[in-house]
Amino acid sequence: MKGEFDLATAVRDLGGGSYSATVTHGWDIGGNANGGFLMAICGRAMADHVGRPPLTVTAHFLAPAPSGPGTVDVETVRDGRRLATANATLRQDGRDVMRVLGTFGHQTFDQQGDGPTLVTGAPPELPPFDDCVIPRSPSDDFAPALFDRLAVRLRPGDEGFRLGVPTGRAEIAGWFAFSDTQPIDAVALLFVADAFPPPVFNTGLPVGWVPTLELTVHVRGVPSPGPLRCVYRSRFIQGGLLEEDAEMWDSRDVLVAQSRQLALTPRDVTSDPVTPRG
Amino acid sequence: MKGEFDLATAVRDLGGGSYSATVTHGWDIGGNANGGFLMAICGRAMADHVGRPPLTVTAHFLAPAPSGPGTVDVETVRDGRRLATANATLRQDGRDVMRVLGTFGHQTFDQQGDGPTLVTGAPPELPPFDDCVIPRSPSDDFAPALFDRLAVRLRPGDEGFRLGVPTGRAEIAGWFAFSDTQPIDAVALLFVADAFPPPVFNTGLPVGWVPTLELTVHVRGVPSPGPLRCVYRSRFIQGGLLEEDAEMWDSRDVLVAQSRQLALTPRDVTSDPVTPRG
Repeated sequence: MKGEFDLATAVRDLGGGSYSATVTHGWDIGGNANGGFLMAICGRAMADHVGRPPLTVTAHFLAPAPSGPGTVDVETVRDGRRLATANATLRQDGRDVMRVLGTFGHQTFDQQGDGPTLVTGAPPELPPFDDCVIPRSPSDDFAPALFDRLAVRLRPGDEGFRLGVPTGRAEIAGWFAFSDTQPIDAVALLFVADAFPPPVFNTGLPVGWVPTLELTVHVRGVPSPGPLRCVYRSRFIQGGLLEEDAEMWDSRDVLVAQSRQLALTPRDVTSDPVTPRG
Repeated sequence: MKGEFDLATAVRDLGGGSYSATVTHGWDIGGNANGGFLMAICGRAMADHVGRPPLTVTAHFLAPAPSGPGTVDVETVRDGRRLATANATLRQDGRDVMRVLGTFGHQTFDQQGDGPTLVTGAPPELPPFDDCVIPRSPSDDFAPALFDRLAVRLRPGDEGFRLGVPTGRAEIAGWFAFSDTQPIDAVALLFVADAFPPPVFNTGLPVGWVPTLELTVHVRGVPSPGPLRCVYRSRFIQGGLLEEDAEMWDSRDVLVAQSRQLALTPRDVTSDPVTPRG
């Protein structure tokens, strides 16, 4: 049986590289669909078209996407033996919403599993899932509908930005799963890269929202079953821009995806549709 | 007067978004042009077409590029007030060599200079330029022609991979300038992101070459005059793939660019055109 996320990001092949999709209500923040969610819709159409899962995908955000129908037009750029490169545009009502460029292929570059290996890093240290913090309270009627779909649990303290006690560090870590426990595949990882609150919220800086310009995700492994441990950090908040890096680790302590986005840090918080309350 | 790099990456506007370019001999490694060099050619054509410098650019590498003529076809995806998004293909002899997607705009998101700022990081600590190490020896007739064009100086010890004494860490740091001291602009930063030897060479792992699949560069500032301090690291070498992150810092200690690439770590070193000697 397909999970809620698989159904929400499903696309229908119209032939010739065109796919119909629906930006489903319930995966949005303040009425506009989550960027990673849109990227997953595009990634699913592209993966279907080239017959391989995503390996490295970059999305450029052109316009907000309200709920409603859309189309994804996929063009194969290169179709090689192991890798295929494709380009895609997500459109709604004749307007370009997102442009995507990606290379697709199976994680089979080291079939023997004995290739060059050196990992400098480890999953974030987190208390058990049930001891971490739900990112919204039940009484929070403004809270993003998105978090109803997700079993996200924040590292205790990292919810400080919502309570008026930011940690002072641009970092948020926690567990990720889908509420319906559907498995997390390569397309879902494109979504996970953008599924947590922005870590800049924990700095205490006057940043009310963080519109993404560009998001790149590298899929580095096939997740083993169970929730992921994720950490999101911004190291360079300067000049009206920030980068946000994420790492996603599975239950075997394998890094399964790495992502980076470039986003704006608008000064005008009066036009802010998604200021966290707290 | 234009510098050697500006001349080598120059493009000629043929109208309709088409540009002619020449992949110049002397910017190659073992006969194939450096990836960042090709990205700079594309970035220059795209920047000309949309009238703005690069801000975030992603290139997917489709085929090696020998010396010779090429064309860059640029398509404007979105032309906004402050930002423009464009797509480009570099072709040689009818073959697609590189596909690029980028968003272009001036670094003017924080015109007052008093926006939210928090930097967690610092330039690599390096001895003075003249106390660092030239990455090739004068007798090294196989050494990449590329390094003739560049005033690259490695942190002492980081040249160990060439001498049979790798440091054991996937990190290489050093100074970057052009040999003719031409200023480093936003297009040049696309090149700098890929201009050092791969840090994996210092692990001692049996990785002979590192073919790039994808390279993303975020331009985060306009460099002040003088050489840059750069550091290149790979943290996750696994599954036949690695990521390589770079930071580029200017003489004011400002991070002016950040980059990440995804590359293969082929096991077959017998087919290796660029094994470092030492």
